This record gives sequence, structure tokens and C-alpha cells, in this order.
Amino acid sequence: MTDAPEVRQIATADGDDALPTPRPGRLAVIGLGPGAAGLMAPDVRDELDRAQDIVGYTTYTQMAGPLRPDQRILDSDNRCEMDRARLAFTLAAQGRHVVVVSSGDPGVFAMATAVMEALDQSEDPAWQRVDLAILPGISAAQAAAARIGAPLGHDFCVLSLSDNLKPWSQIERRLEHAALADFVIALYNPSSKARPWQLSQALDLLRRHRVPATPIVLGRDVGRPDERVLVTTLGEIQPEQVDMRTLVIVGSSQTRQFPRQNGGVWVYTPRWYPDTTTESS
Amino acid sequence: MTDAPEVRQIATADGDDALPTPRPGRLAVIGLGPGAAGLMAPDVRDELDRAQDIVGYTTYTQMAGPLRPDQRILDSDNRCEMDRARLAFTLAAQGRHVVVVSSGDPGVFAMATAVMEALDQSEDPAWQRVDLAILPGISAAQAAAARIGAPLGHDFCVLSLSDNLKPWSQIERRLEHAALADFVIALYNPSSKARPWQLSQALDLLRRHRVPATPIVLGRDVGRPDERVLVTTLGEIQPEQVDMRTLVIVGSSQTRQFPRQNGGVWVYTPRWYPDTTTESS
Repeated sequence: MTDAPEVRQIATADGDDALPTPRPGRLAVIGLGPGAAGLMAPDVRDELDRAQDIVGYTTYTQMAGPLRPDQRILDSDNRCEMDRARLAFTLAAQGRHVVVVSSGDPGVFAMATAVMEALDQSEDPAWQRVDLAILPGISAAQAAAARIGAPLGHDFCVLSLSDNLKPWSQIERRLEHAALADFVIALYNPSSKARPWQLSQALDLLRRHRVPATPIVLGRDVGRPDERVLVTTLGEIQPEQVDMRTLVIVGSSQTRQFPRQNGGVWVYTPRWYPDTTTESS
Repeated sequence: MTDAPEVRQIATADGDDALPTPRPGRLAVIGLGPGAAGLMAPDVRDELDRAQDIVGYTTYTQMAGPLRPDQRILDSDNRCEMDRARLAFTLAAQGRHVVVVSSGDPGVFAMATAVMEALDQSEDPAWQRVDLAILPGISAAQAAAARIGAPLGHDFCVLSLSDNLKPWSQIERRLEHAALADFVIALYNPSSKARPWQLSQALDLLRRHRVPATPIVLGRDVGRPDERVLVTTLGEIQPEQVDMRTLVIVGSSQTRQFPRQNGGVWVYTPRWYPDTTTESS
């Protein structure tokens, strides 16, 4: 871990007031996917192999390996996302090939948005010249869904339960409308030590709209060595079953489960919806 | 194209009433991703390489190539999804290694749900014994979002505008709640020759809730040779800009755009939401 990474100045002044403009570098914001190498896009592996600097949370820079000794890891457990985004632009503006790592899809509650915010706020023309690319990845909801069947097979929504950056009232408003719309609901950041009550409150809200038998999928560390996928119901779920590394999928009124021959169940949401008319095709 | 593929009986009766139970095969439901090989998961490539039978729409079986001469392609332009799912189980129950191909993520408006429905409805114990796996992929909304920035960077919903399998009233109800919840909205199957009016009606509904300047991203064939990504607004979009191969992302009240140096724009939805309180962290 590097708490305060040294940012080397690649373009140096050489006594002339006409400084050479450094060749703009590349900044790739990549999604590692759920964790297993077999679910990471080849384009992402290529970016990692070509990168000089790898910026991200320690957990994710470790997942991105193996890396070569000549590749610089600028990781941190605690630096905020905006600081990481700005560091990445600073390095890329100096001509470096920089990769910012997220797990899952960087566009889903991850670093792509912070990188966009940093660029939008910057007036540095060197940042604007950086060759910026965002590479998608398989997100946690997709990985968990695939393990258990097809719970996201019909209309669904993706919602973070973290009220760090949005008011809880807005989260409740979204949950209420998601319930009334009968969306399947994928909950990211469902619970943490610092946010112990939010999940219970969200489940209480959903219980006013959906029956106790509604299937709930809990996918923890899907695609990593400690993977665990559980199926429970809205009536039976215990908040202790969920932590920050768990992805929660709450079924719609139509989501079903049926037993697998070797134990466990499959969960899916049918493609059709009751009262279908065939006015058009 | 094979309109009525011959299903060979691998296990044959040999004059005995105690027929040998065929060794169960494997059925993998895979997502090719948006189309470019660099965005297809290595696990998906492995399944394709090991498959004996490849089942799917012709467009997707062609995208899955190159395939070997010994691999059997059971493709079709017009067979319904449930027929394809049942064909795949029939072959796998005979001991074959079968892959069902979807583009994007098979769990998002694609074949994983049809396969689940077929298994749920079947009472054939041989189908239950099949080694069934679902492999996720990068979906169209993710690919389009990555090209243009991070429009899905905050809470969003994913909704099909096709009323083939659900009543239009349910789609309107979902759109209304998605608008009131201020979700970013990704619209799949937005328009087709047989469904010409649905998109206009959906946009009219959204215009009652969001300002004309709301950014809209149109991603057509993202990741394929004819890729085209356009940014327009809720006030300016023309339904003719959208066809069945276009993915539509409608921004929330918070979605922003800013110019790129080399032309075009970036679009993103900030991580934070107005009136944020920091009651917990």
C-alpha cells in the first residue's frame, strides 16, 4: 500500500520558457468483473498488461494481478474516489499509461463516474487531451443472477442503499416507486458497520408491497474464492445475513423458484407478465 | 440456417427393456457481450470451444464464431425462444455439450429466462440431471454507457418497451414510477417495425416529468462494426433515430453532459444527489 504515492514529473523544464508539451497519455477506467479471471473481458486484461500505473483500492489492485515489477501500483485503502480520479488524470496528462481499477462494471457505482466528475470540474487543458476510455465489466448483480438462474430476466432496477452521497429520503422514495412498479430490485452497498439500519428499513418498506414468499437472492463474493449464494424470502431474511460484500436481489411479484435436483433452488423472473394482450407483435 | 434441425438419438435401445441411462450432458447459456471479441468473457469462449451443439438465433451463432466443422449449429431466424430452450435440453439430456447463445447478458431480456421456464415446466428427470450453467455477459446498456461516459453512474432501471409478452399498461405504469423515482432509464427493444408507436408514447410520458434538456444516449450496434453512439435530448429526439438495434438511455434530473476536446460530448450521472446529509458514513 502506498499512502502518498510520489507523482514523478515526466516532462521537466530544461531552462527554456517554451516548455515542450508532454505527449498526452492514456487513462483507462476498467471493470475487473466479479473477480474470477474467466469473467474479465480480454480488453481489460490488455489494458492492465500495457499499463504503467495502476490506480485503485488495494483490494482491486490485488485482484488485477499478477502485475509486473515495472508496473507502479498507486493503491490506497482510504483515499477518496475523487482524489484517485484526479491522481489518475495528473499522471495521464504527463504521458503515462494509467489504469483505474474497479471491480464489476466501473460505470455501476464505481470509478467511471468519479473520473467523469473530475474531468468535468477541471480546467486543465492537459487533462482534456488525455486519451480516456471506459471499459465495461460484468457487475455483481449479473454474476449473482447467473449463479442462481435468471432473477433479472424481466424489468429491474439497480439501487445503492448507501446514504453517504444521497439523502435517505431519496432512497426511500426510489424504493417505494420501485415496489409500486413491480421491478425486480438489485441492492448495492446494502449494509456496512457504519450503516447498520438502512437495510432493515428498506426491507420493511418493501414488505408493505410484496408478499413474505417473495424470493431474495444474497450473492456474497460471487466469482471469488469465498463465494456464497443463498436464497431466502422477504419474510425470512435476517439483516445479519447481509454485509457490504453482499449483493441483494429482491424478486418482483412474478419471480419464482423451483428445486434443483442436486439441492438448492433455481430462481427466475418469467419473460411474460400476466394479462398480456397481443395487440402488436 | 436449419429450420427443423434433426435431433439424433445418442442413446439407442438395444433390445433390452433396461435401457442404459445416457450420461447427462451440459447446457451452458452464455452471453457473447455486445459483439466485439475483446468484451466477451474468457469462460464464454471456453464454453463455445468445448461445445458440440450451438443453439441460437442466426445473428448470434454467427457472432459466436469462428466455429469448427465438427460443431453443429442449430440456428433459426424464427423459432421461438421456448422451442430453442427445449431443443437445448433435449440434446443435453442425451449427453451432448450444448451452448445456447445470446448477445449481451443472457440474464437480461435473453435466453436464460426461457431456459429456466422450460426446466420449470418439464417433468423429464433427464432434463433435471443436465449440468446447467449460466454465464453472464456485458449487456448493451453497459457497453453504450461506457462509450459515452458514465450515464448509469447512479441508481437506474432497465426496462423493455416490447409489449409482446406484457401489457402496455404495465409498461406505462413502470415508466411512470421510474420517472417519479428519478431513475436513469435504459430502454431495451425500444422500437421495431411491428411496434412503431410505443417509443413515442413512452417519451411523451417521460416529458411530463423531465425537462427537454434531459440527455438521451442512443447506442446502436455498440461493439460491432456499424457502431454509432449519439447523444440527444428528451426535447429533440426523433423516433426515426431509434430502431430495434438501438439501446436508449434516458438521463435522470441529475445527468449531465460536457464537451470532449475532439468533438462530441461525455455524459454522466453524478454519484451524489442534491440535499445530501451526512448522517452516516
